[in-house]
Amino acid sequence: ASLCIIVLTSQSALTNPLYGVRCDVLTVEIEHVDAVALEKLEKQGVVCEPKASTIAIIQDKYRQKGHFSKFGIPIADFVEVDTLSSIENAGEMFGYPLMVKSKRLAYDGRGNAVAHNKEELSSVVSSLGGFEHGLYVERWTPFAKELSVIVARSRDGCTVCYPVVETIHKDNICHVVEAPAQIPEKMKKLATSVAEKAIKSLEGAGVFAVELFLTNDNQALLNEVAPRPHNSGHHTIEACYTSQYEQHLRAILGLPLGDPAMKAPAAIMYNILGEDEGDSGFVLAHQLIKRALNIPGASVHWYAKPEIRKQRKMGHITIVGPSMFDVKAHLDRLLQRDTDGPKKVRPRAAVIMGSDSDLPIMKDAAAILEKFNIPFELTIVSAHRTPERMYAYALSAKERGLEVIIAGAGGAAHLPGMVASLTTLPVIGVPIWTKSLQGTDSLLSIVQMPKGIPVATVAIGNAENAGLLAVRMLASRDTELSDRVNEYQQNLEDSVLVKARLLEELGWDKYLEQCMKP
Amino acid sequence: ASLCIIVLTSQSALTNPLYGVRCDVLTVEIEHVDAVALEKLEKQGVVCEPKASTIAIIQDKYRQKGHFSKFGIPIADFVEVDTLSSIENAGEMFGYPLMVKSKRLAYDGRGNAVAHNKEELSSVVSSLGGFEHGLYVERWTPFAKELSVIVARSRDGCTVCYPVVETIHKDNICHVVEAPAQIPEKMKKLATSVAEKAIKSLEGAGVFAVELFLTNDNQALLNEVAPRPHNSGHHTIEACYTSQYEQHLRAILGLPLGDPAMKAPAAIMYNILGEDEGDSGFVLAHQLIKRALNIPGASVHWYAKPEIRKQRKMGHITIVGPSMFDVKAHLDRLLQRDTDGPKKVRPRAAVIMGSDSDLPIMKDAAAILEKFNIPFELTIVSAHRTPERMYAYALSAKERGLEVIIAGAGGAAHLPGMVASLTTLPVIGVPIWTKSLQGTDSLLSIVQMPKGIPVATVAIGNAENAGLLAVRMLASRDTELSDRVNEYQQNLEDSVLVKARLLEELGWDKYLEQCMKP
Repeated sequence: ASLCIIVLTSQSALTNPLYGVRCDVLTVEIEHVDAVALEKLEKQGVVCEPKASTIAIIQDKYRQKGHFSKFGIPIADFVEVDTLSSIENAGEMFGYPLMVKSKRLAYDGRGNAVAHNKEELSSVVSSLGGFEHGLYVERWTPFAKELSVIVARSRDGCTVCYPVVETIHKDNICHVVEAPAQIPEKMKKLATSVAEKAIKSLEGAGVFAVELFLTNDNQALLNEVAPRPHNSGHHTIEACYTSQYEQHLRAILGLPLGDPAMKAPAAIMYNILGEDEGDSGFVLAHQLIKRALNIPGASVHWYAKPEIRKQRKMGHITIVGPSMFDVKAHLDRLLQRDTDGPKKVRPRAAVIMGSDSDLPIMKDAAAILEKFNIPFELTIVSAHRTPERMYAYALSAKERGLEVIIAGAGGAAHLPGMVASLTTLPVIGVPIWTKSLQGTDSLLSIVQMPKGIPVATVAIGNAENAGLLAVRMLASRDTELSDRVNEYQQNLEDSVLVKARLLEELGWDKYLEQCMKP
Repeated sequence: ASLCIIVLTSQSALTNPLYGVRCDVLTVEIEHVDAVALEKLEKQGVVCEPKASTIAIIQDKYRQKGHFSKFGIPIADFVEVDTLSSIENAGEMFGYPLMVKSKRLAYDGRGNAVAHNKEELSSVVSSLGGFEHGLYVERWTPFAKELSVIVARSRDGCTVCYPVVETIHKDNICHVVEAPAQIPEKMKKLATSVAEKAIKSLEGAGVFAVELFLTNDNQALLNEVAPRPHNSGHHTIEACYTSQYEQHLRAILGLPLGDPAMKAPAAIMYNILGEDEGDSGFVLAHQLIKRALNIPGASVHWYAKPEIRKQRKMGHITIVGPSMFDVKAHLDRLLQRDTDGPKKVRPRAAVIMGSDSDLPIMKDAAAILEKFNIPFELTIVSAHRTPERMYAYALSAKERGLEVIIAGAGGAAHLPGMVASLTTLPVIGVPIWTKSLQGTDSLLSIVQMPKGIPVATVAIGNAENAGLLAVRMLASRDTELSDRVNEYQQNLEDSVLVKARLLEELGWDKYLEQCMKP
């Protein structure tokens, strides 16, 4: 009961005589194979996943665009060009810059060229080998980000989608992949639905990569599809419950699809591109890999290609970690960016106050955070005297990686509530004692928030408890930290028990005399 | 510049003629090899990691015990026995049950036997092959849990330790590994320090597994050491930044050691043990694997051993997930335990109140949690009328997987503060409105907590904000959830803007008349 899977890795592999005899499933790791030959094999009863029809559509990018356009998938405007006059007409229609593309054998930036004006058209066409191999043009898409969604479809037609990633290109070659993409949930949903719809329009099982443009006006336009595991899914090996490779096998074999979710919060994939030809290229790559071995959460994949060429993908490094902030900091270290500066630590908590006169109280929150080794930032932000600063501070808090904000204020104490209204982070309010009303003004200003915007209020002047509350919030999914909170509470209990024993031993009069002297 | 690593997988492999010629590093995947031959190779200049001396100590369990005892590592009392009278003396000294062990070739429960009384001694000795192969006895250790710590040591003597795991045995064979072990941080530190000290007493680089007993009186006693990647580290493949296998290679090659931390919060490893000989054994294993393909976060490792035998390790399944609660639930599904019941969902939040009269207010917190799809539990817990229930509820909250508690109370409102004093989870207090003092009694009872025990207090009667605060706490590391909080706040803003436009259009008088009617 052994199984034979044949993976087509190049055109020539199609001559393998095994197909008709004992191949159970035929799949591809490159779409530039003879689709007609594949179709013949299908007719002879060989199971191809995905189907030859899908390979035929995808390997011709012009046909691909036509297909997705027919199925109502959002894409940039495009038109076939076969003469200088037809491309000039297209230039007038779409404007410049104009994207000119080869229909076939285009990948990693090859087969794409940009004409910035009418005069450049003929040289761009010849750089792509002339009209005879087939060209088309596309309206230039000004995009904010390039995204990719890996979609898996099983033999029974079920699909699952991996979390949307951002792909960052360098000279048209994928260089960095950030997972998950740092974009609003709404945009992720949109990109995922476009990707899923595109794959549902194709035939056959397997893993597909859908590359998209996120435009400045928040559209997700499909760029192109690869009918196979893809560079934008390499991080899934370490970062997801099911890697794209296992998923592809599950899909083409008719097994249930695996969970595509990320098992770690953040990952970055960095392609090792050839920087130089020959030995010096290998030396550079070797230095990079050596540094990677010292980066926490980094895994090195070296493809052992026999030759190094400039811009060739020689391997990749995936960095997995507890937050995008952390993995980006690790990538900076890997690439020796900013190596002289002090090691960055992401503050997890913030302590802010309306005035420096609040510091003698608010320092207690800072002391608790220090005691529990929580990295934090501390500053003055006044709702009334620095409203713009407060606005900017609260709006950026989440993306700077903060997880909780402690805000102290007195009197008409608006800071905690205003900050809470500008962020989704939990905000803890510390009412500062006031001379006029003993802090009841602060307490009521902070605690009596309207429905919709909560502030976690602690006792008047009790910044220590604000710090402890922040620690509890951070500890609720962190066993090591919650054990330390437990220990802290145990120590509180112990210190009361010591006093109780002393009081019982000494009696009330001696205790007052010896232990309670001012 | 290619590298030759030879891994000894059995005794016979030692005859390989390559050692002297071009082996760069020699390592072992089983400790039962000829240590004398290894030592000879070392003298010929072959690099063995770990050192032959370490293999020699470890493969003789009696010598191992003597070694660790000499280095002050806590172990159970033991003594060599070579005659019936010496084992009877040992029985008198240590009492019964008495653990009798072979010095050599003992693993997976083989070479261990228990004598329950003096009369059983001679049959136990013969079951172990008599005194001639070497026996010793150990004082019986009543233990709470069996733990394991994977320790890696580099060629320059640095060590890193993986998170402590619990190993659960079935008929003396490792069956389940839970990572991280669900024990207090203090115990983890103790077990880790014992393990690290033990490995530092041995020579050579590589990955070592240190098996320990956690006794009922909170000691960590070393049981035994394996000088190689180990069954108790299989979960590291999917659950840790660096797998034990990559770590072993890094260690023996003199590369920097990788990060041993877990990249996902929880993992369970389940050994696929042969349940039956021959075909029916394969059928059972196949059914298990088929189920595993449908379990989120499960990875199947099938060793493709040619023959199945009862209790033989045929493969393993690792389940990785966001909490121990989740992976245990998935293991239950895999093993078809409790398959008839409804699917368990771990409540992440709790809404509790002192009296059912608080429900008309507290329902608003529940409604918010429902709106945000947060699984929660809701019940009545009274500090004054059900003090024992409150005590038990609060103490068990954390281990039941709760992440935040919302508690409502009125008057002398002690529930939120009392619960906060019994758990490390963040507690949100909702002051309930009272007739006598309009809820100021409740507010001050809840908010004015002493230093050390914080309660996150919201406005009087504002349980909706308590729910939103809980959601913010859960969302601070969950992008999808925080995006939904953001959307919620956006909707609040929109609804105010709609009213503003209407007020501007209608003017104050018509607005009051048309929109503010009671």
